[in-house]
Amino acid sequence: MVFIPSGLRGRFPAGTSVLQAARTLGVDLESVCGGQGQCGRCQVKHSIGAFPKFQINSRIQDLSPPTELEKAQRSDLLKRGRRLGCASRLLGDAVIDVPPDSQVHQQHIAKEVTHCGIDLDPAVTLYQIRMPPPDVHDQTSDLSRLLQVLEVEFKRCDLSCELSVLQQLKRSKEAGDWKISVAVHRSPGGDSVIIAVWPGWRDRLFGLAVDLGSTTIAVHLCDLSNGDVIVTKTRMNPQIRFGEDLMSRVSYVMLNEGGDKEMTRVVREALSELAHEAAASAGITPEEIVDMTVVCNPVMHHLLMGLDPTPLGSAPFTLVFDQAVLLKACELGFMLHPQARVYVLPCLAGHIGADTAGMILAERPDLADEITLLVDVGTNAEIVLGNRRRLLAASSPTGPAFEGAQISCGQRAAPGAVERVRIDHETLEPSYKVIGCDLWSDEAGFSRKIGKSGITGICGSGIIELIGELFLAGVIDLQGLIDPTMANRSRRIVAEGRTFSYLLHQGNRTLSITQNDVRAVQLAKAALYAGVRLLMDHLGVDRVERIGLAGAFGSHIDVKYAMVLGLIPDCDLSAVSSLGNAAGTGARIALLNQGKRAEIETLLGQVEKVETAMEPRFQEHFVNALALPHRLDSFEQLGRVVRLPEKGRGVVSMGRGTNRGRRRKPGVRKSVPAK
Amino acid sequence: MVFIPSGLRGRFPAGTSVLQAARTLGVDLESVCGGQGQCGRCQVKHSIGAFPKFQINSRIQDLSPPTELEKAQRSDLLKRGRRLGCASRLLGDAVIDVPPDSQVHQQHIAKEVTHCGIDLDPAVTLYQIRMPPPDVHDQTSDLSRLLQVLEVEFKRCDLSCELSVLQQLKRSKEAGDWKISVAVHRSPGGDSVIIAVWPGWRDRLFGLAVDLGSTTIAVHLCDLSNGDVIVTKTRMNPQIRFGEDLMSRVSYVMLNEGGDKEMTRVVREALSELAHEAAASAGITPEEIVDMTVVCNPVMHHLLMGLDPTPLGSAPFTLVFDQAVLLKACELGFMLHPQARVYVLPCLAGHIGADTAGMILAERPDLADEITLLVDVGTNAEIVLGNRRRLLAASSPTGPAFEGAQISCGQRAAPGAVERVRIDHETLEPSYKVIGCDLWSDEAGFSRKIGKSGITGICGSGIIELIGELFLAGVIDLQGLIDPTMANRSRRIVAEGRTFSYLLHQGNRTLSITQNDVRAVQLAKAALYAGVRLLMDHLGVDRVERIGLAGAFGSHIDVKYAMVLGLIPDCDLSAVSSLGNAAGTGARIALLNQGKRAEIETLLGQVEKVETAMEPRFQEHFVNALALPHRLDSFEQLGRVVRLPEKGRGVVSMGRGTNRGRRRKPGVRKSVPAK
Repeated sequence: MVFIPSGLRGRFPAGTSVLQAARTLGVDLESVCGGQGQCGRCQVKHSIGAFPKFQINSRIQDLSPPTELEKAQRSDLLKRGRRLGCASRLLGDAVIDVPPDSQVHQQHIAKEVTHCGIDLDPAVTLYQIRMPPPDVHDQTSDLSRLLQVLEVEFKRCDLSCELSVLQQLKRSKEAGDWKISVAVHRSPGGDSVIIAVWPGWRDRLFGLAVDLGSTTIAVHLCDLSNGDVIVTKTRMNPQIRFGEDLMSRVSYVMLNEGGDKEMTRVVREALSELAHEAAASAGITPEEIVDMTVVCNPVMHHLLMGLDPTPLGSAPFTLVFDQAVLLKACELGFMLHPQARVYVLPCLAGHIGADTAGMILAERPDLADEITLLVDVGTNAEIVLGNRRRLLAASSPTGPAFEGAQISCGQRAAPGAVERVRIDHETLEPSYKVIGCDLWSDEAGFSRKIGKSGITGICGSGIIELIGELFLAGVIDLQGLIDPTMANRSRRIVAEGRTFSYLLHQGNRTLSITQNDVRAVQLAKAALYAGVRLLMDHLGVDRVERIGLAGAFGSHIDVKYAMVLGLIPDCDLSAVSSLGNAAGTGARIALLNQGKRAEIETLLGQVEKVETAMEPRFQEHFVNALALPHRLDSFEQLGRVVRLPEKGRGVVSMGRGTNRGRRRKPGVRKSVPAK
Repeated sequence: MVFIPSGLRGRFPAGTSVLQAARTLGVDLESVCGGQGQCGRCQVKHSIGAFPKFQINSRIQDLSPPTELEKAQRSDLLKRGRRLGCASRLLGDAVIDVPPDSQVHQQHIAKEVTHCGIDLDPAVTLYQIRMPPPDVHDQTSDLSRLLQVLEVEFKRCDLSCELSVLQQLKRSKEAGDWKISVAVHRSPGGDSVIIAVWPGWRDRLFGLAVDLGSTTIAVHLCDLSNGDVIVTKTRMNPQIRFGEDLMSRVSYVMLNEGGDKEMTRVVREALSELAHEAAASAGITPEEIVDMTVVCNPVMHHLLMGLDPTPLGSAPFTLVFDQAVLLKACELGFMLHPQARVYVLPCLAGHIGADTAGMILAERPDLADEITLLVDVGTNAEIVLGNRRRLLAASSPTGPAFEGAQISCGQRAAPGAVERVRIDHETLEPSYKVIGCDLWSDEAGFSRKIGKSGITGICGSGIIELIGELFLAGVIDLQGLIDPTMANRSRRIVAEGRTFSYLLHQGNRTLSITQNDVRAVQLAKAALYAGVRLLMDHLGVDRVERIGLAGAFGSHIDVKYAMVLGLIPDCDLSAVSSLGNAAGTGARIALLNQGKRAEIETLLGQVEKVETAMEPRFQEHFVNALALPHRLDSFEQLGRVVRLPEKGRGVVSMGRGTNRGRRRKPGVRKSVPAK
């Protein structure tokens, strides 16, 4: 007989069950109940007809007729035309089709994880067990019998067992009438432990993928039986009250005895509460959550772990540890299943954390031939560059300008923040879009829709677009100076002391961009570009073939403006994309596929760290990158999208198309000749 | 050059340190500081002269002259005539002697562990580490650098690390001025974990070997650096208030909801307190105790683990688990080092516990050619029989008679209890010895010495000797009946209803042995003998070549009387010995040598369990063994020591020699012809 699609084949005595044959041949056919006709997971299809490829003529009499059990399951479990692998027996040379949903390692496209199919193979596996009833001639211990069932029925060997499971084993088997469910956790090192037992047969367990950012914490509650994200919950990181950015939190610890313990406590509490909220939304108990993965930057990492983060505040930025770590959730104070595990992805260096590991795991630049640049911009930019031959990583101190901090009217990306800007190159009048409103400011009904909450500031992507547009309109020159002569052309160019500003909006709050703001963005973008450039030097390339921008800023920014201002190096615009929350995707991958944990640990051990602060060339690149655009050729490359400006002074406008992220069809609205 | 006594030799470039050469050749030469000249453990001796065996003429100039460091250490660390292996360098063909105290795996004879040399190789090893100071060019994490030192200096690889160690690593290295000590625990499966870190260099760690009996708890505090037992502390098992023997404790749980939790709590508390008492006596803190091993019977095992013991009260006596278990001490509520480990030896079956495993580990009958019988007598007798080819084990329900319970004047072996008895075969007058007094009752000063506390009862060994003596004196016949006609010969033979008693002592308390007491001992000894006989049947032997009696009863009993009454089968008396606390010795072996843990786990998996209750032949053997002596030939075998009685009625007296335990020189006082 032969199994398709695998093509695995063999000869078996008449009467052998299809499930047994599949196991013997190593065919990927799921069974949760161990072939007892209970779980309905081993569904197969008997393919009738001639299969020249296999030289088999599969006839209806080659499989035993449906049993009473199968007939009974037709109404609910058993899909039309299918058979139970455990109940159907081979009588001849049958061809058996294993449909995708009966495969254990089914390819699962998790929700919200575009470009990223995750093979479902979680660290925690659920087994439905029928314990052998008591027998006066059998003195075997309960655990030995459980281990025997796991070995014989499910091929799980060399298992150890938590004491708490042993303490519940007797009660569970009695309450479940000899049916129990157990959860087995496998570590990246291959050790397997029985971590939970329940009376009766359950069919779902849950896991949490956590993206612990310095600003926002996001938890994704996933169904480990199918990989679905059931609920996502986010909240602000409560540590913000100790300091807006990472370094101010490190300073808080330096200045306040026990400050680290305070921050450890609040972030653990917040994570616990989010987990409980997620469980409540999903209608499950927190005890059903048995696994958890975490990505975060090194400072968050140390504060979560209860480690003093102060060494991360100054060179050589020594981490206490950078290895991936597997803990019990209760060790971090999380009230999930008492034996739930937490896997925290590895860090790379003092400024390159588990979030970067998550991004690498989500994008896997090491599997591609093309030179890929991955950037996650925050207070520091984490930069990864390379391909299947070599991967480099660095962190560049961009400062918080891209996050809207240290900008006079800047704010975080939140409702009320200007996120997109266009400027008429003749009148220099702006139109803009505000988060939470789908109209542009010059469209009818905008004011009404914005309402009382009003416009509160400009977020990172808005600042980039505003400066980019001002540059393209000729208001800002190559050196980043706001041209004083422009004040004659528009009342929006306003003198402020010896420098000038551009007035974007006047209302409850006046929003303008000052010369200092432009300088702050220049410094930030030069730092980012210099870091990228340094990695390119180390890799010995002068072009990258693919660019991915990750994180909140990377998701909001219009990649064209990133290129106009020279945040990123030359690259075909069609190969530049926003990755969304790549770190969070990495956490989800590690949650849903335990094999990926060992993979990212190995991979991260091979990534070469480049210390920007130690490299004289970093300073050189930084100074060279301060101008707008830092190099004319990158601006020329943009010529494919917008008309080239003359004399290097930008007078090209860009469309309003929703060309953020992956929607990459720039709509050129009009072009105006240079002045 | 060549190392002696190992004889390992090699060629090295001039200037190679002796320690380095030893490591390259795999010579067992200790070094705790990693060759930094600090620990003084790598001491060697340069042997000068001609060594024809190795064809070497070792001259003084073949080793570098003593360094300043060595000269400085001469006063304290460095022994006369010795060199530091790390400081002395090979300049020619030297012969280097590694003295026993410089070997890591030195043969250590632990105190009180006679016949049992323990190779010192504890599960927890201490390392003195010098952490590399900070370096702005080195971004390696603290943990990575620690792991590197452990790998390079100490060849310890693949280590994981507890979070609590990581949390203390920074503070420890700062407080210790870059010197730290770490403790690494290795599991029987081979996983190694860094479980503790301290600032500075420490040179001792401690472990506890626990013998958790139903009556007495004993803890032995051991120095893991040399295997010495520093302190032994014992106390009564506080569970005694819930039931004197095991089955009454199981009944207590059956009758009292939550009774198991109560007993779990009190026994864990008692163990914790004993550990703290032991630490206080040794002048250390409980936090310095990092490892612990436990032996106990199955009911104690389940109650210690927090498991319901009621299934152990009835067939099929199913254990929740019988495997060895490795836990954190805090999981059992012990307040030692927060990461201290507990290793509980495996059980064999519902009535054969980790104490039997300990006895097997202490005696290793599997290593001998001779057929060995090991017996630990308590409420149940655990019986092990076999040799290197096969080992069998069984438990026989002797009841508590041997422990002095269910005997009218019986009591536990404690001060005030009669432990030895001799009876004048003419006058039938007794003399006896009482625990806590070194005089016999007929010696001058006995009454004064016994004082007010007086004589409180007869313990197990006293009962055996009393019945044995009465039998040898002809007071008790082969059927165990107290001969009524004897009442004519002595006023000590007293009628009680329709049966007779023997009056041993009259004082504050009257001590006599009744017909029922004799019956109880007959039942107990028949059960023990039947169990042994059953195992002999299974093994297909009709003689044993060595007998070891373990436990409190086995240590107190005079083995000759055990043979007179037929507790044990025929054996050359010189091959019968008391093993002392063999289970406790097993716990100590497992504490001091982690390799023995895997050995006993494997060995126990090979022991064949025989279920006495299920075997019809057990009943047969039991009935046949009720008589005194059960078989005449065993009594004849005794003839080598005492004169044979005629007509099977014993009239042979035995000496008072201190022939308990290993002192096996019976002193025959006199012999009287049969009546």
